[in-house]
Parts: sequence; structure tokens; C-alpha cells
Amino acid sequence: MTKSELSSVYRDYIACLNGQDWPSLGRFVHEDAKHNGERLGISGYRGMLERDFAEIPDLSFTIELLVADPPYVASRLRFNCTPKERFLGLDVYGRRVSFAENVFYEFRDEKIVQVWSVIDKAAIEAQLLHPGGRYGD
Amino acid sequence: MTKSELSSVYRDYIACLNGQDWPSLGRFVHEDAKHNGERLGISGYRGMLERDFAEIPDLSFTIELLVADPPYVASRLRFNCTPKERFLGLDVYGRRVSFAENVFYEFRDEKIVQVWSVIDKAAIEAQLLHPGGRYGD
Repeated sequence: MTKSELSSVYRDYIACLNGQDWPSLGRFVHEDAKHNGERLGISGYRGMLERDFAEIPDLSFTIELLVADPPYVASRLRFNCTPKERFLGLDVYGRRVSFAENVFYEFRDEKIVQVWSVIDKAAIEAQLLHPGGRYGD
Repeated sequence: MTKSELSSVYRDYIACLNGQDWPSLGRFVHEDAKHNGERLGISGYRGMLERDFAEIPDLSFTIELLVADPPYVASRLRFNCTPKERFLGLDVYGRRVSFAENVFYEFRDEKIVQVWSVIDKAAIEAQLLHPGGRYGD
């Protein structure tokens, strides 16, 4: 795939997540997919996403920055959402939080086969401590 | 700059950090540099790095994954180090920790002008709780 084809596939993948279109997930996720070193496959990957949406009903993925260099994509995602209960071990309980995820993907056969994700937990902690602070935008 | 030139400049920047070669930092960091939204300039950027090395004497940057698409670079960095006291608000106090940083850079005039960094704080927390666990490698 060219860089622009890979970017286009990635944007379609994000649209699939935002539409919770789980029957289409197999178009984007490889059967050998790993997430942060853990082998999930398509069913495990889908299970992870379904849990995310169950815990965060207003979850939505917004691409802030996309860097593609086949077979890799790096994406900075932005979330503005209200986790219902605890999230990443933090007592969020329905408060609105804004945070980024910086995430790398390796593609194989035009599908995601490895994900290395880091979520900005420190930004969420800062918002819970100082709700009107600079991270609260 | 081409993709390979940009990657090469980025590797030289990381070598500059690992050598604590602060007089050369201005070759890589723009005078308008911002880090996670905060305007630092070269002197503020250098101050941040000098503090990092003061707090973590064995600090060393290792590139695990590099994705370049001019004017952007995305890098997954790996650290194995022993922060002397508290680190990211955690009671590390000389314990050895391993963690990743997923970080994006925007270049202008062949220099870093914006950085969006997320450090895997959750991995460090897990290691402090479970020193022999899967994150302790």
C-alpha cells in the first residue's frame, strides 16, 4: 500500500470504530493482531472495543495527527468523553474528561497486526484534581 | 527534507540527548519550540532535559519504532532507568523501571518546533505494584 492508501484504510478503520460496526472489524484487524504485546486476534480485539464502549457510552475517536510510513501508522487520537465508573484505575464516575492517545500500528495484508498504545493518564489525573485547569479544555 | 533525511536528523537529535551535548541542542530544536502545548524555546527545552538527567542519572533514549512523514516524526522510545526520587508523581525512589514514550514531533527549518508526548505511566505503576510482573522486563 502507498502512504495515502494506508492513511485512507486507517481513516476507514476509525470510522468503523465510531460506528461500532463490529461485523466490519475483520476488514481492518488481522487474525493475528496483538495489542501492547498481548495476542488478541479479531475476537479479542472486538471484545476490548465493546468493553470500551460499554464503559464509556459516549466514546468517540478523533484523529488529531496522522503519520503514515508503510507498513506503519502513528496516530494521535483525542477523546472527550464521560467514563461511567472507574477508568484506568481512576475514580472518574461520570465526569467529563479530555485526553490523548498516542498509538502506533503495524499493518500486514492491509490489516492491523500490532498496536502499541499509550494513553495520557497523567492528563486525566490532572483534570480530576483541577477540574478547571489547562487540561480541562 | 526527505523522509530518510528527516529520520537521520531525528537519530542525530537522540544521540545529542544521550550525549547530553547541550551546546548542540540548538541544531535540532527550534527557537519557537513547544512541548505538550507549552512554549519552551531552546533554553526551556534544554532546562527540561537537564532536569530529566538530574532526576534520572542513568537516563538513556532508545528508539524502538520510528515513523517519518515530513514534516512529522513519530517515535516510540524505550527507557530502562532508575529515577532517584519521585517520578511522574510516583514513589520510584531508585527502583529500576522500564517504560515507553510515544511521541510526535513537527519539524520546521529542519528543527523540532512542536512535541506531543505521552509517557506510559500505567506501566510504571504496574511495575511498582508487581515488581516481577510482565511489565518488569
